[in-house]
Amino acid sequence: MVGLDPRLDSLPEPFASRVQAGPAAAAEALKEYHRALIDVIAPHVAIVKPQSAFFEMLGAAGFDAMADACAYAKEKGLLVLMDAKRGDIGSTSEAYASTFLGGGFQNAFPACDALTVNPYLGSDAAEPFLAAADANEAGLFFLVKTSNPGAGLFQDHGTPPLADIVAGQVAEWGASRCGKFAWSSIGAVVGATRPQELAHFRKLMPKAILLLPGFGFQGGTADGLSSAFDEQGQGAVVNSSRSILFAFQREDLQHLKTWEERTDVAVVEMKQQLACLSGSAGA
Amino acid sequence: MVGLDPRLDSLPEPFASRVQAGPAAAAEALKEYHRALIDVIAPHVAIVKPQSAFFEMLGAAGFDAMADACAYAKEKGLLVLMDAKRGDIGSTSEAYASTFLGGGFQNAFPACDALTVNPYLGSDAAEPFLAAADANEAGLFFLVKTSNPGAGLFQDHGTPPLADIVAGQVAEWGASRCGKFAWSSIGAVVGATRPQELAHFRKLMPKAILLLPGFGFQGGTADGLSSAFDEQGQGAVVNSSRSILFAFQREDLQHLKTWEERTDVAVVEMKQQLACLSGSAGA
Repeated sequence: MVGLDPRLDSLPEPFASRVQAGPAAAAEALKEYHRALIDVIAPHVAIVKPQSAFFEMLGAAGFDAMADACAYAKEKGLLVLMDAKRGDIGSTSEAYASTFLGGGFQNAFPACDALTVNPYLGSDAAEPFLAAADANEAGLFFLVKTSNPGAGLFQDHGTPPLADIVAGQVAEWGASRCGKFAWSSIGAVVGATRPQELAHFRKLMPKAILLLPGFGFQGGTADGLSSAFDEQGQGAVVNSSRSILFAFQREDLQHLKTWEERTDVAVVEMKQQLACLSGSAGA
Repeated sequence: MVGLDPRLDSLPEPFASRVQAGPAAAAEALKEYHRALIDVIAPHVAIVKPQSAFFEMLGAAGFDAMADACAYAKEKGLLVLMDAKRGDIGSTSEAYASTFLGGGFQNAFPACDALTVNPYLGSDAAEPFLAAADANEAGLFFLVKTSNPGAGLFQDHGTPPLADIVAGQVAEWGASRCGKFAWSSIGAVVGATRPQELAHFRKLMPKAILLLPGFGFQGGTADGLSSAFDEQGQGAVVNSSRSILFAFQREDLQHLKTWEERTDVAVVEMKQQLACLSGSAGA
């Protein structure tokens, strides 16, 4: 999986220059950039993960560019995991779930295949997301243990730690939602920067697909990830954002003329590193 | 404070009919509706709280309608508290904070006066929000204890309960950020549907302005709120959304011809109920 995190100060040319003309021009540049990027990565990866925050910085025009990237990725046969980390009380969660999994009001936004959800508000706040996932044959990834250095402040609180309690709840929500390969549509975000915890969470959520952020740039390595997968190399998706998106800046790739070629090399590298986890099925 | 939660199936006419023509028409209707609504409530309230979820259901057009409502409210002298409940790892939180408190990229979105933040990711994830609040003279309201019935599932976990730990952290973040009336710019959301808990959280966060959702429709009453305020009737903001927004449907107000008149009555009622808390300073 590749994250679409359009940091406006870190785009390749000609997009970087076009951005400076203002939000509308920047949003148009992002549309073209993401279409070109998706063309590069589509042969290699299964999923793209747009990060809502970076698009929202451009206001309505950014939301439009995000919709365009989602629609184009779907058109190219990719799954779209919307990384919006939403969560609110019931009726409001229902609105968020509708937007990102159900097309919103009269298809105002492309229906995504999965959504990240913040669990802090509890089970009744999660219910509308679960219902929308069921209705739209979509998936959810609840934040269990995040990849940031300070994740433990609240997530490790209590005995057992909160993250374990959330994991238990995710397992319960997911138990009745397993598909033909026995994996559930209800998954979990588990920070890949702490490989030693992966086996622990794998055990707590045996049917949940684990979303492992932080591969590459945030310090996660393929070696540390193996405990997240089963013997067939199934059960987890590995995200990389910056190590792919910033590949055009890599000094060792400057002999390649275009940002697309450098990006292609980085995606193939990531894929090879992950394939080592479990033979050819690994990535 | 009045929440702007545009539920498309519960708008007054002529807006309800116009919505059916699709997302773009619905967004235009929302712009006109919110301008008219803000005209009605501006003489009575201090703050509006747009709920991002309901706008996002209309995709980019909805985000545009949300920006318009924020800008118009500011123009009318109201404070805007954006209820987006965002939260993510550092660099992504920075993008969200920039959008809602700092105007986003080149003023792509109106800079709001405050933002609700989900604390689940911990302190390094909160830092960019704190920095943006400082830089923009804005406020934050961290979710401590939410108003939904199942809030306790995770928020009550551990001894002391997680919500108390979050409250302690909010108090710490806020301690160095107090203004000339001794209140901090770092506040907290505490569900007003549990009045018995208010005194407890008031004590844990002595300088934090408490955002009390759920007044009216969710079951909170003015009587139950008094422990959130100090002797001068300061220290909390009370939100009402549905009891104001749905007032046009009230049977006892059908003698009033327009939705604006009925809404005006409901806002004045709310204000009077809250004023009882502490004499004229209460609301």
